[in-house]
Amino acid sequence: MLLLIPGPVQTRPEVRAAMAVDIAPWDDDTQAELAALRERLLAIAGGVPGEHAVLPVTGAGHAVVEACLRSFVPPGGKVLIPLNGAYAQRMARLAREAGRAVVALEVPDTRPVGAAEVAAALAADPAIGHVGMVYSETGSGIVNDPEAVGAAVRAAGRRLVLDAVSAFGALPFRMDAHPECDALAFTTGKCLEGMPGIGMAVARTDRLLACAGRAGSWVLDLAAIHDHALRNGWGSHRFTPAVQVLHALGAALDLYDREGGQPARLARYAENARVLYEGALALGLTPYLERRHQGPIVVTVHQPPDPAFALRGFVAALKARGVLISNFFSTATPTFRVGCIGAVTPGEMGAAVAAMRDALDSLGVRRRAAA
Amino acid sequence: MLLLIPGPVQTRPEVRAAMAVDIAPWDDDTQAELAALRERLLAIAGGVPGEHAVLPVTGAGHAVVEACLRSFVPPGGKVLIPLNGAYAQRMARLAREAGRAVVALEVPDTRPVGAAEVAAALAADPAIGHVGMVYSETGSGIVNDPEAVGAAVRAAGRRLVLDAVSAFGALPFRMDAHPECDALAFTTGKCLEGMPGIGMAVARTDRLLACAGRAGSWVLDLAAIHDHALRNGWGSHRFTPAVQVLHALGAALDLYDREGGQPARLARYAENARVLYEGALALGLTPYLERRHQGPIVVTVHQPPDPAFALRGFVAALKARGVLISNFFSTATPTFRVGCIGAVTPGEMGAAVAAMRDALDSLGVRRRAAA
Repeated sequence: MLLLIPGPVQTRPEVRAAMAVDIAPWDDDTQAELAALRERLLAIAGGVPGEHAVLPVTGAGHAVVEACLRSFVPPGGKVLIPLNGAYAQRMARLAREAGRAVVALEVPDTRPVGAAEVAAALAADPAIGHVGMVYSETGSGIVNDPEAVGAAVRAAGRRLVLDAVSAFGALPFRMDAHPECDALAFTTGKCLEGMPGIGMAVARTDRLLACAGRAGSWVLDLAAIHDHALRNGWGSHRFTPAVQVLHALGAALDLYDREGGQPARLARYAENARVLYEGALALGLTPYLERRHQGPIVVTVHQPPDPAFALRGFVAALKARGVLISNFFSTATPTFRVGCIGAVTPGEMGAAVAAMRDALDSLGVRRRAAA
Repeated sequence: MLLLIPGPVQTRPEVRAAMAVDIAPWDDDTQAELAALRERLLAIAGGVPGEHAVLPVTGAGHAVVEACLRSFVPPGGKVLIPLNGAYAQRMARLAREAGRAVVALEVPDTRPVGAAEVAAALAADPAIGHVGMVYSETGSGIVNDPEAVGAAVRAAGRRLVLDAVSAFGALPFRMDAHPECDALAFTTGKCLEGMPGIGMAVARTDRLLACAGRAGSWVLDLAAIHDHALRNGWGSHRFTPAVQVLHALGAALDLYDREGGQPARLARYAENARVLYEGALALGLTPYLERRHQGPIVVTVHQPPDPAFALRGFVAALKARGVLISNFFSTATPTFRVGCIGAVTPGEMGAAVAAMRDALDSLGVRRRAAA
């Protein structure tokens, strides 16, 4: 079975094998392993030892995004969120339920937010302290631009929380070039091609110290995680982590390095997405996004208007052909969603496109003549 | 290496092997697996379908304990916590940082809290709505009595949140016999002998509905997890779980059933603890707890007063002999701590006692003549 969901992803055998061991999290050897893992992740994030810290939180991406919001946006504080996708909507809900005031910046889920839009919204409300933005929107596949938006946030003297959950490791971002960024969030089970179960924040240590006490949750308090590491070492844990997931991430990073790191991974994913996007067009299907807004992580495709098409039937027909895609959609109009990340090659994406053609034909779904 | 830490525990090969697979959490087969897992866990908890719900939260035990407190104790509400151990102290911190008012009931960490003490504290303060209690205290090894304390809570018309993290699956508790219990918390990686990474609450559905909106955290909101399951099915997830850990828990429950369920597991752990307790006495060491207060999960032993003893050196010497124990203690006075849970037999505990003797002798630690 080929997993083409945007996380958890298809992994390599070395990564899976690293899950099948008993591990004592507080053992000295395990602590050395976590400390080394943090150093490697810090380097991928463009962080500087001492100035930035890698802070693991066992949980989904949502957990670490909530931790970032709670730890940096003060209770009642205003956070501007460009709402161009399902995960941006989720970030807004995480902030609201944590008692932060969300200022919604409405943007369609078919294009990135513009830096000028963010700058205008910040200028209009000086009480907004933070911008919360999703880097790669898993809902539709668009990619926002943290370079341009980050510069606007910096120019306005505000702070950024970046949800890089489905971007980190493939799309570039350097903490050392973004002093406006309090924290970015990512997880083990997306573009790093590890297993799911742990979220990580990379955060500025000066801000962790300055903002301590804001979280209103011990579990989701990044400042407390940082403080614990300062006192007990960078291999320590406050609470029992999903330790096999950490171990498997080490194996995944070995493969990441061997592939050539972020540029190589981005190149492979971009080619995967291109094969899928053009393959969909060749099948007479219509991608959800214009080509210029299509990111390399997720490709969404309009559901064919033929009543013979039903999403669950299509997903089942694809699964019978060895390809697993998401059985739900979260775009504004009905789509199906294909992940382009994980241990998957462009050749396998081509085979997946062929499986889609077979599945549609077996279901009797009429397709337009190819564009 | 034999893991004798009180979670994550030594597991069986079948459980480890179940970790080494790629899984799509939203796939129909995976959803059926989670739904079946919830039914099995509900039965172990003595829950009634429809009246109680099993609610997974990816994270450590602390995460699900915080979720229980947030979801049932209202913001600013008072929760009485008997503070007879390190994990009770942690529960108090979780509650306080979540903005709940902790009423401390001071009890030494060498004995269970008495039901009469709880009743008196509740009678003294009618504003206390909840009692938060740890069932098995991982810090010292004592076991509180939820039968007697639960009855006192019920008689006083208050509510119980039970941290059963290191007890569930071995020590008995039936939700259907405890209408005063809003929720109990447990994890995958303790007495069920699965892998760490997911906490679970078993909660009353009437109370989940009545208390919806209290959590102040979307991630740690049990009512929202319940609502999502009602709308999307008992195999659904709100967010990506540590799905391999769920899969491995299924394998662990197969072994649990084969062993004979809760009574058989308790009997094995009790025998493990007896071998260790008596073995420590035979080595001239002094267990931290009186025998009548010694639970079956964790045995703590006073560190020998000989200056030749240092905890980390002792742990390293034991590790060199194939036995891994905790390299820290959390009792009121210095101890070392040995877990009696996991896929470990009394024979292996006997071998661990022999390894302790060798380790102490190799370090030149004088022992008293055996009692």
